[in-house]
Amino acid sequence: MDKADPDALRSELNKKTIALIDRVARDIRTSIEKGQLPAIAFPIRGLSNVIYDRAKGYFELGSSKKVRTLTVNTARSFAQTLRMMATSRAMVDNDDFATKREVYYISKNWGDCRFDEQAESDAIMDDIEALASIHGLSREQLRFYPESHGGSVAGRLSVIDRNPASGEAIEIDCAGLGSGAYMIPRSVEHLGFRTDAQFVLAIETGGMFQRLNNHRFWDSSNCIIVEMGGVPTRATRRFIRLLSDDQDLPVYCFVDCDPYGIANIYRTLKVGSGNAAHINRFFCVPRARFLGVTPQDIVDFRLEDATHPLDKADIKRAEDALHSDPFIIAHPEWGAALRQLLKMGVRAEQQALAKWGLNYVIDDYLPKKLANPRSFLP
Amino acid sequence: MDKADPDALRSELNKKTIALIDRVARDIRTSIEKGQLPAIAFPIRGLSNVIYDRAKGYFELGSSKKVRTLTVNTARSFAQTLRMMATSRAMVDNDDFATKREVYYISKNWGDCRFDEQAESDAIMDDIEALASIHGLSREQLRFYPESHGGSVAGRLSVIDRNPASGEAIEIDCAGLGSGAYMIPRSVEHLGFRTDAQFVLAIETGGMFQRLNNHRFWDSSNCIIVEMGGVPTRATRRFIRLLSDDQDLPVYCFVDCDPYGIANIYRTLKVGSGNAAHINRFFCVPRARFLGVTPQDIVDFRLEDATHPLDKADIKRAEDALHSDPFIIAHPEWGAALRQLLKMGVRAEQQALAKWGLNYVIDDYLPKKLANPRSFLP
Repeated sequence: MDKADPDALRSELNKKTIALIDRVARDIRTSIEKGQLPAIAFPIRGLSNVIYDRAKGYFELGSSKKVRTLTVNTARSFAQTLRMMATSRAMVDNDDFATKREVYYISKNWGDCRFDEQAESDAIMDDIEALASIHGLSREQLRFYPESHGGSVAGRLSVIDRNPASGEAIEIDCAGLGSGAYMIPRSVEHLGFRTDAQFVLAIETGGMFQRLNNHRFWDSSNCIIVEMGGVPTRATRRFIRLLSDDQDLPVYCFVDCDPYGIANIYRTLKVGSGNAAHINRFFCVPRARFLGVTPQDIVDFRLEDATHPLDKADIKRAEDALHSDPFIIAHPEWGAALRQLLKMGVRAEQQALAKWGLNYVIDDYLPKKLANPRSFLP
Repeated sequence: MDKADPDALRSELNKKTIALIDRVARDIRTSIEKGQLPAIAFPIRGLSNVIYDRAKGYFELGSSKKVRTLTVNTARSFAQTLRMMATSRAMVDNDDFATKREVYYISKNWGDCRFDEQAESDAIMDDIEALASIHGLSREQLRFYPESHGGSVAGRLSVIDRNPASGEAIEIDCAGLGSGAYMIPRSVEHLGFRTDAQFVLAIETGGMFQRLNNHRFWDSSNCIIVEMGGVPTRATRRFIRLLSDDQDLPVYCFVDCDPYGIANIYRTLKVGSGNAAHINRFFCVPRARFLGVTPQDIVDFRLEDATHPLDKADIKRAEDALHSDPFIIAHPEWGAALRQLLKMGVRAEQQALAKWGLNYVIDDYLPKKLANPRSFLP
């Protein structure tokens, strides 16, 4: 069940990244040598250039481009773009990385093309990221890392990393961390996996993760548990995606029964978001299915007296999803579920199951649900 | 360097916890049998009952008490208090735990004394926690866990946990987690430690933690690195405290040079906070020292052009600390440092060191600082 050699994969991606940067640089040099104004074409990142592909199941960038040509007005941002790409290339060479914030500070030594605000450096990084994405390379492969780490992981999984100093393989047994867990690093591109688990359970809240971990739910149910802690970070999403693809594992999502859990947390994990369409191809998890808590679970597990009324924001979020979210619209089951929730007028947290005892979730709820994954919402 | 057997310690604390709950229950029963109104005395948690002990170096509860006597008006909260203590006792017996949110939901089966709002159950839990604290027992020992996990850990440390099912010891090597890290669980009372590290480095930002981890700074510098991610959570603070006490390790704090990094993050780690005085004895880290970034570092490491102006909130925070924070007032070095910062009118993030190159922090800044820990601010 080993992934193809992670070192070979890593080395190939590094070559691809350097080739892309070199190609952009070479084109610019060629233009200059021919006496032409150099230019770089970036994909447009706005909603106007986003397509929802029903077959792929996620939002992706369309083919519209904006061209940044070197002129008096663009000289500074043009130079900044090139310096940032050169920084990326150097980091690939040195096996290093920089956070968005660090990139901003690095520029303090760039003389006249230093950034005055991080918003400037972030915008240029987003352009470069969008350009790389159409070549199948993520921002992490450019070695620009997010500030936030990924969620916690426990269960029947070995993560294969390597010692950056010696190159030696390091194998992390996520079943051997006691009441603690494996913290997903900011970039996961270099990781390999080995597992005999049957599925990944992606959990909204930290308290529920700790409960399932302390009771070693992953052992009795032969799975891997991941704490999302609300809307999952880039690192968490990419980790689940790579793990699911590499090991051919289904992903079940266990979140609160409210419009936020459904239309924000689950939907972001599964199909990504419209305003970051250039990254969805790396970050969405098309195989994710919704285990619960579903509106029907409130009835089936008699949670009515442990619910809370939907507030205005909940109702608006549900109605927006029903009327304008292509993912929800594409799946009538979701339309029905959201309408049922609106009709009941309440929401239920995953902890509400504690009403029947702290470990009811482990002894009753999850086994009943897992007996029939085909019934999970899409 | 082993800690005294963690299992024996754990068992002793469990006995102490049960003894406390039994004593409260027995006193109530005795009162009833004598025909007296039963009562429980809780420490007052307000600022009126907080003392700053200069010798101990932290805020602690004074001896004022409030007495909850069983009357018609208090019948419900009296019963809720007893049921919550009974829940705690059952969790100690069953080696289980509940988050604050779960406790609220458990009450849904308590009939007339169910909680209507989590604010009610939280207030009663705080009272019980304050009562336990004067007997040397933390809320985690009562088995009420926070929702937030602790920070990430990497370095020359083995954490000794145990398999809750088999009781078997589990040893987690924090030097063997690659680019990932050990996620501190929500309760750390049961953990043991083994290490040959010379110090603990507590780091404000995730990006800096990832940098020091990827470059295995902990290996070359013989230390343990901990990511606080802003103001450290309960679990992070308790973990650092136990580790520092158990292994007699100094703790160096590496945060941004701004009033928030100094007067909130560092001060909370070291001396706790005034409005949670009943927990400081477990959570503060009196041995912590401030490595940097200091106001003088901005000058010494020529970071002036990578600073940002202090905003109004920064200035107010610094002035409040100078005028009313007993910890700052007790240490003239801190008064001088904050006045220097106000005079310079700027703040510097730890990432600002990237101005001199991404790994300047590893190659120059930290080695220079660590050569002279005596110069660290108190």
